[in-house]
Amino acid sequence: MIKAVFFDIDDTLYDTSGFAKRARKAALQAMIDAGLPLSQQEAYLHLRKIIKEKGSNYDKHFNILTKRVMGEEKPLLIALGMITYHNVKFALLRLFPDTMSTLIYLKKRDYQLGAISNGLTIKQWEKLIRLGLHHFFDDVITSQEANSEKPDQKIFQLALERMGCQAEESVMVGNKFNEDIIGATSVGMSAILVNSQLTEEEKEFIDREGLKVEVVSDISQVQKLL
Amino acid sequence: MIKAVFFDIDDTLYDTSGFAKRARKAALQAMIDAGLPLSQQEAYLHLRKIIKEKGSNYDKHFNILTKRVMGEEKPLLIALGMITYHNVKFALLRLFPDTMSTLIYLKKRDYQLGAISNGLTIKQWEKLIRLGLHHFFDDVITSQEANSEKPDQKIFQLALERMGCQAEESVMVGNKFNEDIIGATSVGMSAILVNSQLTEEEKEFIDREGLKVEVVSDISQVQKLL
Repeated sequence: MIKAVFFDIDDTLYDTSGFAKRARKAALQAMIDAGLPLSQQEAYLHLRKIIKEKGSNYDKHFNILTKRVMGEEKPLLIALGMITYHNVKFALLRLFPDTMSTLIYLKKRDYQLGAISNGLTIKQWEKLIRLGLHHFFDDVITSQEANSEKPDQKIFQLALERMGCQAEESVMVGNKFNEDIIGATSVGMSAILVNSQLTEEEKEFIDREGLKVEVVSDISQVQKLL
Repeated sequence: MIKAVFFDIDDTLYDTSGFAKRARKAALQAMIDAGLPLSQQEAYLHLRKIIKEKGSNYDKHFNILTKRVMGEEKPLLIALGMITYHNVKFALLRLFPDTMSTLIYLKKRDYQLGAISNGLTIKQWEKLIRLGLHHFFDDVITSQEANSEKPDQKIFQLALERMGCQAEESVMVGNKFNEDIIGATSVGMSAILVNSQLTEEEKEFIDREGLKVEVVSDISQVQKLL
């Protein structure tokens, strides 16, 4: 019997990728308007390359951009980019349409709810607070605390330990096959993939290994499984 | 003849201390509402002590607060405190009534304008951008860049060098006697103290050393001197 439901945060509870892209484009336009000598498209390609190199949680993307393009860091441009990025990000921040109703449904049925996320602990709580979701979650387990990132087993084991439940009593809901689904099932949890589809290879892998994996179109469908 | 006017930022161009206090109190109330076991007054005294120990530019005041009071860092409370602090801070952020008109006055008279500030370069530009002042300033010189804090001579010398002007062609406007006034006059600049008053000792020191220092009630009075 399932007692605890764990969620990935980004692109599972809310549309991270969509708003991040728009926020980045707005930031680059502010920097271009203030003297960054690139077209919008060139700037976006540069930034994507930097994000790929440094990871999306790195906080000095704009420093590197000005340094590479203009030969030195340009504090005014960097600050303009950061402010615009944050303003647009928070203005656009919103849940997927059925996230709130699904969490209410799960709470009414007395499931314990946790989040398992790669990133800094306080940043993950910050997302939940800004999304208005922090009262739903009993705990947030992060790679910073586990000293290990999804799909590594350690972060899932820490989550089970902190929630006080067994792997077979727990299900992981996430949008990334490798990080969320493979990670969770590798410690014996079941898993639900949302907002994503399985490749043929992934389907074969699940069948071959006999993993307990469900695939649903979006988070509202989680209610039919629990 | 004066060619360049340098400004301190905090409490010279805008009311930092007033809004920071209100933002901190709002942040503490949010943390108390979410379980920080202190009264508003106890929490504020704790926080002031931590700020005194670590400096106001340190970014983990709330981490230390939860650790000291509750035995461990509490990410939810820390994140609630940080979000509330920033939201209130940016909501309250505003210039002193005559800052804008004074800067316009100086621009019309072709003075070069700079800011000299202890702190991180990008954070100082961020303040100017959020205050809507960044187009007025030709340059911002920070302790991060000078590797030395006001009142040390190095930061003022770097400011003169970057602005391409001599000490006797420059005036520093600030609210702190030691950091701004002593610092600037020690390299030969003249200085204007705003939003503050001189003690008897400070007056005697200025007379004894023959420093070029004016004292005015607020930033609007700078217009009468330049």
